[in-house]
Amino acid sequence: MAKENWGRWGPEDEAGTLNLITPDKVTAAAGLVSVGRVLSLAQPLSSATPMARHRHGFAHFMDRDGGDYAAGGKRPGGFQFAEDTIMMPVHTGTHIDALCHAWYDDRLYNEFSGDSIRSTKGGQFCGIDKMPPLFTRGILLDAVAQRGEVFPPGETITLNILKAALSATGREIEPGDVVLIRTGWLESHIGRTGVSLDTEPGIDVEGAEWLAESGVAALGADNFAIETIPFPAGAVFPVHQRLIRDYGMPLLEGLVLAPLAKAGAKSFLFSAAPIPIVGGTGSPLAPIAVL
Amino acid sequence: MAKENWGRWGPEDEAGTLNLITPDKVTAAAGLVSVGRVLSLAQPLSSATPMARHRHGFAHFMDRDGGDYAAGGKRPGGFQFAEDTIMMPVHTGTHIDALCHAWYDDRLYNEFSGDSIRSTKGGQFCGIDKMPPLFTRGILLDAVAQRGEVFPPGETITLNILKAALSATGREIEPGDVVLIRTGWLESHIGRTGVSLDTEPGIDVEGAEWLAESGVAALGADNFAIETIPFPAGAVFPVHQRLIRDYGMPLLEGLVLAPLAKAGAKSFLFSAAPIPIVGGTGSPLAPIAVL
Amino acid sequence: MAKENWGRWGPEDEAGTLNLITPDKVTAAAGLVSVGRVLSLAQPLSSATPMARHRHGFAHFMDRDGGDYAAGGKRPGGFQFAEDTIMMPVHTGTHIDALCHAWYDDRLYNEFSGDSIRSTKGGQFCGIDKMPPLFTRGILLDAVAQRGEVFPPGETITLNILKAALSATGREIEPGDVVLIRTGWLESHIGRTGVSLDTEPGIDVEGAEWLAESGVAALGADNFAIETIPFPAGAVFPVHQRLIRDYGMPLLEGLVLAPLAKAGAKSFLFSAAPIPIVGGTGSPLAPIAVL
Amino acid sequence: MAKENWGRWGPEDEAGTLNLITPDKVTAAAGLVSVGRVLSLAQPLSSATPMARHRHGFAHFMDRDGGDYAAGGKRPGGFQFAEDTIMMPVHTGTHIDALCHAWYDDRLYNEFSGDSIRSTKGGQFCGIDKMPPLFTRGILLDAVAQRGEVFPPGETITLNILKAALSATGREIEPGDVVLIRTGWLESHIGRTGVSLDTEPGIDVEGAEWLAESGVAALGADNFAIETIPFPAGAVFPVHQRLIRDYGMPLLEGLVLAPLAKAGAKSFLFSAAPIPIVGGTGSPLAPIAVL
Repeated sequence: MAKENWGRWGPEDEAGTLNLITPDKVTAAAGLVSVGRVLSLAQPLSSATPMARHRHGFAHFMDRDGGDYAAGGKRPGGFQFAEDTIMMPVHTGTHIDALCHAWYDDRLYNEFSGDSIRSTKGGQFCGIDKMPPLFTRGILLDAVAQRGEVFPPGETITLNILKAALSATGREIEPGDVVLIRTGWLESHIGRTGVSLDTEPGIDVEGAEWLAESGVAALGADNFAIETIPFPAGAVFPVHQRLIRDYGMPLLEGLVLAPLAKAGAKSFLFSAAPIPIVGGTGSPLAPIAVL
Repeated sequence: MAKENWGRWGPEDEAGTLNLITPDKVTAAAGLVSVGRVLSLAQPLSSATPMARHRHGFAHFMDRDGGDYAAGGKRPGGFQFAEDTIMMPVHTGTHIDALCHAWYDDRLYNEFSGDSIRSTKGGQFCGIDKMPPLFTRGILLDAVAQRGEVFPPGETITLNILKAALSATGREIEPGDVVLIRTGWLESHIGRTGVSLDTEPGIDVEGAEWLAESGVAALGADNFAIETIPFPAGAVFPVHQRLIRDYGMPLLEGLVLAPLAKAGAKSFLFSAAPIPIVGGTGSPLAPIAVL
Repeated sequence: MAKENWGRWGPEDEAGTLNLITPDKVTAAAGLVSVGRVLSLAQPLSSATPMARHRHGFAHFMDRDGGDYAAGGKRPGGFQFAEDTIMMPVHTGTHIDALCHAWYDDRLYNEFSGDSIRSTKGGQFCGIDKMPPLFTRGILLDAVAQRGEVFPPGETITLNILKAALSATGREIEPGDVVLIRTGWLESHIGRTGVSLDTEPGIDVEGAEWLAESGVAALGADNFAIETIPFPAGAVFPVHQRLIRDYGMPLLEGLVLAPLAKAGAKSFLFSAAPIPIVGGTGSPLAPIAVL
Repeated sequence: MAKENWGRWGPEDEAGTLNLITPDKVTAAAGLVSVGRVLSLAQPLSSATPMARHRHGFAHFMDRDGGDYAAGGKRPGGFQFAEDTIMMPVHTGTHIDALCHAWYDDRLYNEFSGDSIRSTKGGQFCGIDKMPPLFTRGILLDAVAQRGEVFPPGETITLNILKAALSATGREIEPGDVVLIRTGWLESHIGRTGVSLDTEPGIDVEGAEWLAESGVAALGADNFAIETIPFPAGAVFPVHQRLIRDYGMPLLEGLVLAPLAKAGAKSFLFSAAPIPIVGGTGSPLAPIAVL
């Protein structure tokens, strides 16, 4: 059964709501830069980065380093260098979900078959390599400011809270915006070990649908999965199902938003470009907000 | 012995020439956006991405995919998902070199000791996690247009060619600019297998020093190592030694520049943010040019 | 359709022809040891190990090494240590194929479903973790000695050659034996780079069936895939299909056999135990022959 | 300063106490086989295998599996196959320590320099690729039987307990024997999650020296590091320092010994061969005992 945005940008579209970021939107977003301050929204990546239990850990291997020279390594022409290899699940730390990351009824966004995602080649459709860069207006919905404290794990940031947070910005959501929701989860867990990824504060389907219908191009948050965990009874990742699969909207997870809130940012230029891993279901991301 | 930019931004500086990207520079760069066109400068990443022979290949593993559901995998609450893990040398495809990537005489940029880079923790100083985002004016020096054809491997893009290419843009290099040099290497090797990484066209030390003294914040190219290979007799990566270690300038390699040239871009907003791998000697990168 | 050995050891059997290695066979094999010479049949594993092109390379990462101490690493209580991590396709170098490695018509050995092998858990049936150790009599069929030279890539070691080689040993194949075939491939490729894995000398289906019907428990060779490549017209790995899937016989590939031949070994104690990777389709192996 | 076994087998020796496994010893060990029962002493390897916290987890990736065919994958010539890649620290599950794994005063066994172990090539001396196969008599010292229960973490299996356990076997340790100590640790932790690797029962230096002076060729146990943890005050892995570095004796860790004890085994043929990872500090191992 066709869903909200299926076919909206043609039967072969693999970019989904990012189509809402038009050239006019890009130009207008650039015009938001006023003080020239660039804020990184990316978590540092290391083996200490919080990681879902079922995933492999982040691994960082030095293929050559200063120690090798200290131990007598040769330096032809005086040259010394260090290099390294990483192994990581793509859904680690600050990252973006590709449209082939989540689905139901064996159909991805825009009716692509789930069978098109295989061990041998990853996602043939809706992979992260099909996702254009995000360069648009960002709006920060500061749920923490609304509540006066960070949201505790398991608590839902309801539609009313989202609306109140939007109202506090003095802006309206316009098509093509990236909306970032500060739940307080990440800032309250930094430096803590043994973080539980079985529970987190987040939005629900009602809020998600309101955002999608408002024309949001991509939705981000400072938690690890956008939506409240535990899920409502009988549901499993219902926001992922609705936004990624039905609306074709990418999700940005694990964003560092506290400094943005502290800077008083309400709307700003948001820029982020996924690493084009062919067939990838997502990508590590280093988004920026430019004030 | 102190080098050109050592101490220039204080004895503890780990950002090098990226300090030249001031708030004013950021604001001015945003002002360059006129038509709202966003061009990705990143290569797709797969096991087919050209890779130096001494490095491990790019590996993409599906931890869960559509095939698992086709074979009978459960879908609690209807939810289906796919996810993956990558393994890659950080200096793969389109990437940026951190300031701890190259040095000589056991001293990194700003006199940090080479001994600070170890297997156990990577680069404690000048790692990619210390590098701020790049958001500034980009200038394309189209050496291919100067020559009328792509440069053959081994050929040097001399200072005179760089100057002529700059002249063709009608711009002057100003402090904080990112300069991108199109050699034609990548576009002439796409789709070819068994690419030799023992030879490439690139710049020499004379050109590098001129760029550095002109205030370039970061230097990029569409080849795999910025500089001509083979090296001049007796030298090994001399441009890396001078720019990264003496000037504290990051290098961007493996950029996709042909579309930018085709679009007639001369100066533009350039935006790229490294993935903050703690202690990493570089990062995969997905830079954009915004016209 | 049931195949030769399906059901022979019960409907739940996952060990196949290794069931032929009975306690009596084990005891008799131990009795073959006479001079107490132990020969390793395993290739050294490194990034130089010949590897099929479609597979990831062998990677060896030092997590801590002597260089780290040379660069100033601490040594609490005087203790210094080094450790490392490997990444490797299990079908690398000297290895053994599990019974879930190859099949056709969606059915593995003993009628297990191909659907039971998934990204999320590997092979639920016939994985390498289900394979018992191999401790039995080994017989070396020295095809090189028969021919007077190593077999060239693409050439078939026919049934007649196998029979002649067996005759030269003065032994008969008895149930539970491990048979090792020396083609000369590995010894003629050691130290060579860019080895083609598109062609090799090996056996054909006729020879394979004769060995299986003779009661061979496991079949090994010094090439990378037991059978002749290129395959006969219309067939793809027909020996794998017959032996692994229809007979339930594990294959041992990449064995180092020249020293065994040089030692004049004809029959001997053969011992090898796979690493029990849960759900693995094979395992690196370090088999020994004891004379 | 020269240590006990330095120079004993020549200045270039990298095999240490494994030199004690002479041809006569091999032949005699084979003669121990009486009932033809083969017991595997290897733990299954999966992400559930207990792992020291500072190490990367075991990762198992399916490069191709049955799901890919269920999703429509092609099967040229009818052929279907599955294959996989593993990533693992070599000191995982059941494994053996190479002689380059542990040292002090910058000198390895036999005076090799610690500087010879580097990121770029692993251990140039005393790597696991230099270690011959182990095929010799094994003796099980069942400390659990002595105590009447598994040893609790942190408790030392003293020299007296070792002697009593030996006495219970009715055997004497002879040069070239492999001695296996059952502490009960592994069997009491199987199936438990969040296993602490900060404490374990094990032997102390006094016991270690007695074993070494008795001519033990290699020492194994069912814990993860042979020796008691926590260590005596001021010491860090003192048994590793003495046995590996001073005596040149490899250690086998994470052995599955309960079934061997249950079988009433006292002395038996022990066979194990490391995977010859070039420059590796250890190897996963699948040892067997043959009764």
